[in-house]
Amino acid sequence: MIRAAVAGASGYAGGEILRLLLAHPGLEVGAVTAGSSAGGLLGGVHPHLTPLAGRKLEPTTPEVLAGHDVVFLALPHGHSAALAAALPDDVVVVDCGADFRLESGSAWTTFYDTPHAGSWPYGLPELPLPAGGRQRELLAGGTRIAVPGCYPTAVTLALAPAVGSGTVSLDDVVVVAASGTSGAGKSLKPHLLGAEVMGSMSPYGVGGGHRHTPEIEQNLSRAAGAPVTVSFTPTLAPMPRGILATCTARLVDGVTAEQVRDVYENAYGTEPFVHVLPEGQWPGTANVLGSNTAHLQLAVDEHARRLVVVAAVDNLTKGTAGAAVQCANLALGLDEGLGLPLTGVAP
Amino acid sequence: MIRAAVAGASGYAGGEILRLLLAHPGLEVGAVTAGSSAGGLLGGVHPHLTPLAGRKLEPTTPEVLAGHDVVFLALPHGHSAALAAALPDDVVVVDCGADFRLESGSAWTTFYDTPHAGSWPYGLPELPLPAGGRQRELLAGGTRIAVPGCYPTAVTLALAPAVGSGTVSLDDVVVVAASGTSGAGKSLKPHLLGAEVMGSMSPYGVGGGHRHTPEIEQNLSRAAGAPVTVSFTPTLAPMPRGILATCTARLVDGVTAEQVRDVYENAYGTEPFVHVLPEGQWPGTANVLGSNTAHLQLAVDEHARRLVVVAAVDNLTKGTAGAAVQCANLALGLDEGLGLPLTGVAP
Amino acid sequence: MIRAAVAGASGYAGGEILRLLLAHPGLEVGAVTAGSSAGGLLGGVHPHLTPLAGRKLEPTTPEVLAGHDVVFLALPHGHSAALAAALPDDVVVVDCGADFRLESGSAWTTFYDTPHAGSWPYGLPELPLPAGGRQRELLAGGTRIAVPGCYPTAVTLALAPAVGSGTVSLDDVVVVAASGTSGAGKSLKPHLLGAEVMGSMSPYGVGGGHRHTPEIEQNLSRAAGAPVTVSFTPTLAPMPRGILATCTARLVDGVTAEQVRDVYENAYGTEPFVHVLPEGQWPGTANVLGSNTAHLQLAVDEHARRLVVVAAVDNLTKGTAGAAVQCANLALGLDEGLGLPLTGVAP
Amino acid sequence: MIRAAVAGASGYAGGEILRLLLAHPGLEVGAVTAGSSAGGLLGGVHPHLTPLAGRKLEPTTPEVLAGHDVVFLALPHGHSAALAAALPDDVVVVDCGADFRLESGSAWTTFYDTPHAGSWPYGLPELPLPAGGRQRELLAGGTRIAVPGCYPTAVTLALAPAVGSGTVSLDDVVVVAASGTSGAGKSLKPHLLGAEVMGSMSPYGVGGGHRHTPEIEQNLSRAAGAPVTVSFTPTLAPMPRGILATCTARLVDGVTAEQVRDVYENAYGTEPFVHVLPEGQWPGTANVLGSNTAHLQLAVDEHARRLVVVAAVDNLTKGTAGAAVQCANLALGLDEGLGLPLTGVAP
Repeated sequence: MIRAAVAGASGYAGGEILRLLLAHPGLEVGAVTAGSSAGGLLGGVHPHLTPLAGRKLEPTTPEVLAGHDVVFLALPHGHSAALAAALPDDVVVVDCGADFRLESGSAWTTFYDTPHAGSWPYGLPELPLPAGGRQRELLAGGTRIAVPGCYPTAVTLALAPAVGSGTVSLDDVVVVAASGTSGAGKSLKPHLLGAEVMGSMSPYGVGGGHRHTPEIEQNLSRAAGAPVTVSFTPTLAPMPRGILATCTARLVDGVTAEQVRDVYENAYGTEPFVHVLPEGQWPGTANVLGSNTAHLQLAVDEHARRLVVVAAVDNLTKGTAGAAVQCANLALGLDEGLGLPLTGVAP
Repeated sequence: MIRAAVAGASGYAGGEILRLLLAHPGLEVGAVTAGSSAGGLLGGVHPHLTPLAGRKLEPTTPEVLAGHDVVFLALPHGHSAALAAALPDDVVVVDCGADFRLESGSAWTTFYDTPHAGSWPYGLPELPLPAGGRQRELLAGGTRIAVPGCYPTAVTLALAPAVGSGTVSLDDVVVVAASGTSGAGKSLKPHLLGAEVMGSMSPYGVGGGHRHTPEIEQNLSRAAGAPVTVSFTPTLAPMPRGILATCTARLVDGVTAEQVRDVYENAYGTEPFVHVLPEGQWPGTANVLGSNTAHLQLAVDEHARRLVVVAAVDNLTKGTAGAAVQCANLALGLDEGLGLPLTGVAP
Repeated sequence: MIRAAVAGASGYAGGEILRLLLAHPGLEVGAVTAGSSAGGLLGGVHPHLTPLAGRKLEPTTPEVLAGHDVVFLALPHGHSAALAAALPDDVVVVDCGADFRLESGSAWTTFYDTPHAGSWPYGLPELPLPAGGRQRELLAGGTRIAVPGCYPTAVTLALAPAVGSGTVSLDDVVVVAASGTSGAGKSLKPHLLGAEVMGSMSPYGVGGGHRHTPEIEQNLSRAAGAPVTVSFTPTLAPMPRGILATCTARLVDGVTAEQVRDVYENAYGTEPFVHVLPEGQWPGTANVLGSNTAHLQLAVDEHARRLVVVAAVDNLTKGTAGAAVQCANLALGLDEGLGLPLTGVAP
Repeated sequence: MIRAAVAGASGYAGGEILRLLLAHPGLEVGAVTAGSSAGGLLGGVHPHLTPLAGRKLEPTTPEVLAGHDVVFLALPHGHSAALAAALPDDVVVVDCGADFRLESGSAWTTFYDTPHAGSWPYGLPELPLPAGGRQRELLAGGTRIAVPGCYPTAVTLALAPAVGSGTVSLDDVVVVAASGTSGAGKSLKPHLLGAEVMGSMSPYGVGGGHRHTPEIEQNLSRAAGAPVTVSFTPTLAPMPRGILATCTARLVDGVTAEQVRDVYENAYGTEPFVHVLPEGQWPGTANVLGSNTAHLQLAVDEHARRLVVVAAVDNLTKGTAGAAVQCANLALGLDEGLGLPLTGVAP
């Protein structure tokens, strides 16, 4: 059995990785580590992981993480680089943090206050490569992978086929996305209290101020083969999980709805984790809850001459932990979908 | 005391009008009518209206509605025209339905399957008039008023100053709005069941298919003095009430954030029901719950060169019933804000 | 105009008092004070109080609170006594904390770690006096009032008529109550995060461990004229506001459903803020949201020979701030219901 | 591969059975049938079941259900008997309806308006047999099983050890339980609309009026070996899934907290799907979402001399579909836990 360690197991991303590992037929849970929660029991921070309730959280150190075949890092942004450097090169390290996602050091510096650690192969297997093929080819057999952010996953899956096919303008892309509050992590901030969140929608990081904007643009620019500029507004929605990304772009003159649908069906027809819904059926975040599946639908607004693509993912599963396991499967030479749920938990 | 009747009192809009009337010092609740619920008690359909629990619902007929100074119509779309025609000209009739909102018969016909009934003065007192002044001047002393839709209220308040001041392009306006499920009314549809709605976000009416698009464009075109085209995507959010409209438009070259802020502060500085939040504070729908207040905030995205304006309103209060009472106050010569709550019920 | 100060205005109880004061025709908002938030603007902590958005929070000191006719204390438990002692005897002081609720020093000491400060007249005007009459007689014209806790309000209103009329046993009373999460205040604890709360029900303080048990027993024992023992289990529900208290007690042999209903209709027939619903209609917390009204319903379970009474209140309004204003009205010689909403904000 | 059919697949219970079957290594999805939805695609009613999105719903007839090894019935109450009679005796039939749960014809007749169809072995494998052993022994190798109701599952697991060990009185048992709204099924009733449900708690079926009371009493009486009377009040909670049952009973004199804890640890120490939490940690419904696990905790209230046991289950999984699969596993000679998730999907 392949042994997997989870560093940062007390947070939501770490908990979700463990949930998936418990159902994974090829990976075994090894060390489970935390920062300030180290020394306590996993059942105290993640009571839903019943089979691991009595497991002790160990400190996050290279020594504790040694001796595993794969190490998942689910640490606060800026904490992965030092730890990764202390792990052997032949251990598969899958980082759920932002540290190694951005290729541009200046984009990193604008949004984070730690030095840029460089970039690792980007863990979105479905992303088309500029030269043909898919990103999964760069991940197979690798030992360092940077898992995408949850918003960039939803937005990239929604828009990559459009920008990559020349059907939309690259300088007029507008995205408004809603996220469940687990996307903000377990940090104790007043605006994340249940009494504040329930019954309320609110935006944040408006006006280009969100850290995920450069990551989205990096992905779409690669898919397009030319720079893409995105106006991105995230909002907080009264639900624990889920991202609904409403993505619009100006349609190139003459492009028809049928052409666009063809582009998407060609792009995702064989992708197990991206499901373009039948015409007229729109995604809902509850339908992908707990699953590694993205639901997509699109429409052409003839009146405003815009393409509207809506994507729903679970921010913790396909948006983080599911992607991490999918990438680990690729790196370890396992079946890409091993242990990953295709069905959501609804209603 | 001025006597008010409410036709269609068993629905959410009718219930909210009654809630406001109960707290109104100048209006008295007269006849309360319904369709299929007629004959039953109001307490059976609106248990929150405790003081009216024993009031009987009468049938919606001109005879029952006779003898009132003001009649609020809260009927399904397409049902107001016939009833309004049977009411005396000197009775103030405030229609919460769509029947008299659209000036364009062809726009009406595209979205509704009844004949176009014409248009009444539009009940958004804050809307600037092309020749200067505000829409309230056209409502004062009138006897027929069409209350705006909830989405158009939020979007128009958010964007009218921008399109009217030449700070943004008129052909590149993108709006994504989230609504609480009371916006869909009490209709018994599977996707509105609590088990389906809670924990889920989903879009609907995508691609120009929403009835509110022509109303939004009518308003913004009037404010701009030139045609405005809007890409509008509504989404259903897991909350009972509230609209959060995220509105973006391409900024005209050279326009600065300071200029835009000045435009909004000038537009709304003296408006009692539109509150531009202090810089950096963003609206949340819970903050306006049950109030007639709209909260607004804006940011300039220098990177994408777009203006982002976010508006929060309660779809049932400022978005429907509060606007109806505000309009009735104007029509009746009362203080415009009489009986209208300025504070939200939060948390 | 009578001037009112609010100490502890940054919390949920303080915010709700201010919301009610803004709509109160006889009271004017004076000083608004806070602890660590002092110096900031009220709009930063309570954006729903739009008309007071620019008001500065002052420090909570006797000097700041001087010169008001009534002072509302909305402080953490244990902080009211010292402050109250520094306020003049002729100022009306209404305490929303627990400090002066319990008559028994030993009961206090079991649940709180500060010295027992004594007890003030108990601010539940509807509570029957042992010798006849109601508690409101003891509050009229007074200057010190202890506002009940939110759970005790709901449970006492639900059970006082039953225990006071000899229709149920006094030693077999079982209460299970659900509360919205604002009942836990704004404290930053992981289990109160939105992501933890939404979609989940959980109990707390089980097994006699909740601070409200002695207060409930004090009230019911007074109503019964003999000691009442209560098994009380509170639960946290995924909603911002509201308490639903399901209260059961063993029925005395021979007592019929009709007799019990008579008892309740006699007890509350003339009470403006306690509404016994028509037979067969059950309370829902949304129906009393934001109102000072309690909804009650009862049934006799012939099979188990128990009376079941269910009460719904808004924990922040009738459960705290509404009761405080109701008591202040009595103390100041105003109409008891002045400025208090009777209708809930629903749906 | 063993082939399984699901009759009534368009409802919530049917959908959950399919979700579990898709992850089951030993069962294969065969016919999928419905009533009025027959002819449509499964993806239209259960978009979360992505791998079956294109599967056609067939009519619910014996012919369509023929040729399967196991048939799951997820039909409205009263519809199972006729269909089951038309299926061969050697086919395993697992009924999620109420039809075959009650042994007493008179109890059935009180709550249902169809004739009593008789009773089948009761599908709660963890229930202790009066003569020792567990109910699973009666299910192994059988071909007809009646799956328990969701409330009875939670309450029976919570109280069976107590009533069976003589630690509590049998005539003073009080249960108040909260359920997510999927428990009411997909029926289109106004009080189940999202706008009504969100933010609200309300009771129903109060005073002995709930159909699950006789089933609970049947189970507990069997566990106790003597008649048990239960006062049961269900409430509707603002969440899609989950049951939290707060169960209390008067403690027999002299019984200590330690003794009770021993009873529960002995009862469930080796049960894979019933987890008694560590002392002081209380169940939350979110922690068992989507899992076949029940979480239990208990406390002795010395003051009121009552035992309080709280159980959390997912009404659709351990409360219905998970139990159905668990029973099918037993009937088919598979490992009892095959394909059943032990972990919840949280947060």
